[in-house]
Amino acid sequence: MYMKYKRNERIGALTYMLTNSPNKIFTYNYFSEKLDAAKSTISEDIFIVKESIEKLDVGNVVTIPGASGGVKFVPKVNKIEETRFLVELAEKLSDPERITAGEFVFMTDIIYSPNVSEVIGRIFASRFIEQDIDYVVTIETKGIPMAFATARSLNVPLVVIRKDIKVTEGATVNVNYVSKSNKNIQSLSLARNSMKEHSKVLVIDDFMRGGGTLAGIRSMMKEFKSEIVGVGVLVSRNSEEFNREQNISSLLRLDEIDEAEERLTIVPNL
Amino acid sequence: MYMKYKRNERIGALTYMLTNSPNKIFTYNYFSEKLDAAKSTISEDIFIVKESIEKLDVGNVVTIPGASGGVKFVPKVNKIEETRFLVELAEKLSDPERITAGEFVFMTDIIYSPNVSEVIGRIFASRFIEQDIDYVVTIETKGIPMAFATARSLNVPLVVIRKDIKVTEGATVNVNYVSKSNKNIQSLSLARNSMKEHSKVLVIDDFMRGGGTLAGIRSMMKEFKSEIVGVGVLVSRNSEEFNREQNISSLLRLDEIDEAEERLTIVPNL
Repeated sequence: MYMKYKRNERIGALTYMLTNSPNKIFTYNYFSEKLDAAKSTISEDIFIVKESIEKLDVGNVVTIPGASGGVKFVPKVNKIEETRFLVELAEKLSDPERITAGEFVFMTDIIYSPNVSEVIGRIFASRFIEQDIDYVVTIETKGIPMAFATARSLNVPLVVIRKDIKVTEGATVNVNYVSKSNKNIQSLSLARNSMKEHSKVLVIDDFMRGGGTLAGIRSMMKEFKSEIVGVGVLVSRNSEEFNREQNISSLLRLDEIDEAEERLTIVPNL
Repeated sequence: MYMKYKRNERIGALTYMLTNSPNKIFTYNYFSEKLDAAKSTISEDIFIVKESIEKLDVGNVVTIPGASGGVKFVPKVNKIEETRFLVELAEKLSDPERITAGEFVFMTDIIYSPNVSEVIGRIFASRFIEQDIDYVVTIETKGIPMAFATARSLNVPLVVIRKDIKVTEGATVNVNYVSKSNKNIQSLSLARNSMKEHSKVLVIDDFMRGGGTLAGIRSMMKEFKSEIVGVGVLVSRNSEEFNREQNISSLLRLDEIDEAEERLTIVPNL
């Protein structure tokens, strides 16, 4: 049994369905059945949804022509919102009380908030939407929420590389790398069934200094015959040159950290 | 500068803003400014959004009266959708190829998919929405995406308890517990600044057998003077009696697992 919708209500319903499943393609047939309206009517409604989403400047409603066609919502973050968000986030994080042993920055109270992760995810998704990404890959633990938000925004599965070898994951692929920050050899492990080979992946992480972990992820992806088409990092401590060479896009830059002097400066990369 | 919206477009814009931030309270003033329309007009528009969301049966649009009042979207999963989802998920997971060493079940290829996690999150959020939850708490690693989706749906922060002690997290609280599955002593660690004391928390995890980990989480929450008001688990291997005693709500039940006989039966708790 289908409900009867008035035009206004169809606009609401279509907006909900499209924007709550970013980058998912819906057919006109699906909407037509779900909302009990002719395809031509749905088509007019979609046009209104498109106008309203584009006036709000939160994304685009894109029509895909052809037999396998349909319509999808591609989220984006407008430049003003992005700038304001990153400036505020950098300010909140630049609190010397946040410096922890080994000159790391305590961030989880902020980056585990869904509102914050969601925006970070939308920013990364906007930057890499053109890359035909198959998976978002991260390494446990702290980057998982923002990597998940990015994956949701791109409508692709998340893959989480584990530290150390997990026996409960079935057959795993293991690689080792040297951590540049503490010169230790670290092991990474990923279940063979976590992802298909020959994929294009986007790597997301919360913090990067040196490129040891990234090198580890690169060798892991090689084992899966997969290509890293982008790297998104929330806070980078690397030089801009290094980031450019390694094709790393970082939202914030750790400019200065000094526990003894109680100085911490994190700035947005605008 | 504000855009001019037609009524139809306002319906789309309001639906987007409300449903993309579940359980967040928006004031009529905010909408009135954002959409350049009188509050009485917004109020009429909200009524239409409410109708359309309720016809779709994906949640409720709730008006909060009074000075600090406003309007919010409370997501829900309707019973038919929930049943269909859990039946399909149980079927997919009941593949003997998924049995791993120690009689665990490989699930990450499925539960890391944003579509799956999102629905799990919405189901948990619906079940615990009345509990005034301050935080969703999980333990690393595999439950993080579904816990994050639950937190997003409830509009509260996520807290992730770490295994072992992390030196990069500043001051941490550490507890130990005995894992019933392998009789080892396990350490859990949580940064002191991860959450406020005297909070009400919802614990979310992907898999539970025995209650060792849960006992560990309980002692951790005691250290934070916080109360566990609910426990949501995707797959439970415990008896229904145990789950009832421990106030555990599990979506799926592991009925049978036998690696040698290649038998795995996971059923929905309907």
